[in-house]
Amino acid sequence: MLTTKDTQTIQKTAIGLGDAWNANDMDAYASYLTEDCDWVNIVGMHWCGKAAVMKAHTVYLSTMFLGVQQEILESEISEIASDVALVVLTIRMGEFTTPDGRLEKDMQDRMTFVMVKQPNERWLIRAAHNTTIHLLAAKHDPTK
Amino acid sequence: MLTTKDTQTIQKTAIGLGDAWNANDMDAYASYLTEDCDWVNIVGMHWCGKAAVMKAHTVYLSTMFLGVQQEILESEISEIASDVALVVLTIRMGEFTTPDGRLEKDMQDRMTFVMVKQPNERWLIRAAHNTTIHLLAAKHDPTK
Repeated sequence: MLTTKDTQTIQKTAIGLGDAWNANDMDAYASYLTEDCDWVNIVGMHWCGKAAVMKAHTVYLSTMFLGVQQEILESEISEIASDVALVVLTIRMGEFTTPDGRLEKDMQDRMTFVMVKQPNERWLIRAAHNTTIHLLAAKHDPTK
Repeated sequence: MLTTKDTQTIQKTAIGLGDAWNANDMDAYASYLTEDCDWVNIVGMHWCGKAAVMKAHTVYLSTMFLGVQQEILESEISEIASDVALVVLTIRMGEFTTPDGRLEKDMQDRMTFVMVKQPNERWLIRAAHNTTIHLLAAKHDPTK
C-alpha cells in the first residue's frame, strides 16, 4: 500500500520534473531519473538509459522546446507492486513549432511514469511513455 | 533477476495478446490483463480497469480495427523490480481507416507494457501505453 508520504513524494517527483523542464535545468531533470530509465516520446522514439534520455532532452530543450512551458493538469497515482507506482499525467504544453513546421497550440499530452522507490525514500522515474491527446477523439471515448 | 522462464512467459503474454487481437477473441484478450489494468491508447485516451479497457477494445475491434492484423516487429524486456517487468514493443498495424477518414497504411506503434508476475507464474499486463511512431521523425532521433 502506498502511504500518504509515498504519494506526496511521488507527486514531488512529477512536479519537480516539470519544474526542471520549465527552468531548463538539465541537472535537476536528470536527478529524477533512474540510471536504467526507459523513455518513449510523443513520436514513438525509444531511449534506453539516463544518458540517452538526457541527450535527447538536452537537444530538444535547446531547440524545439526552448522556453516552452508545461503544466500538469491532472495526475492519477496507483500502486503496481511494493515500491513501484504508476503515475498517469495530463500535461498542457505551451505553444511550439514542430520540426516539420506545424505550430502546436494548446497541445495536451498523456504521460505514464513508472516510478520506483529508492533506498533513500525518493521515488524516481524508471520508465516514461508520452502520447499527444487527440482532443477531438477524446469526445468519442467509447468508455465515457 | 528475470529468469529465462520469466522472459519466455513475458513474451508469451505479449504474443498471446497479439494473437487474441488478430483472432478478434475478446475473452482471450481479457485473459492477459490484470483487473486493475490501466491503458493509454494512441490518441491519449486513458482507460482504468479491465472492464473499461475491454469495453473500448470491443468497440474498436468491431469497427475501425475489424479484421486489421498486427505483428510484433521487436520486443525489449527489462526488469523494473522483483516480479515487475517493462516490455517495449514495436508493432506493425495492418491498413485501417481512422474515424476522421484517413487511411493509415504501414503504421507502426511503440507500445509499453508493465507486466506483473502472478502467484500462478503467469505474467499479466498491469499497464499499457501506446504511441504511433512518426517514421520520418525517427530518422532524426538525436540519440542515434
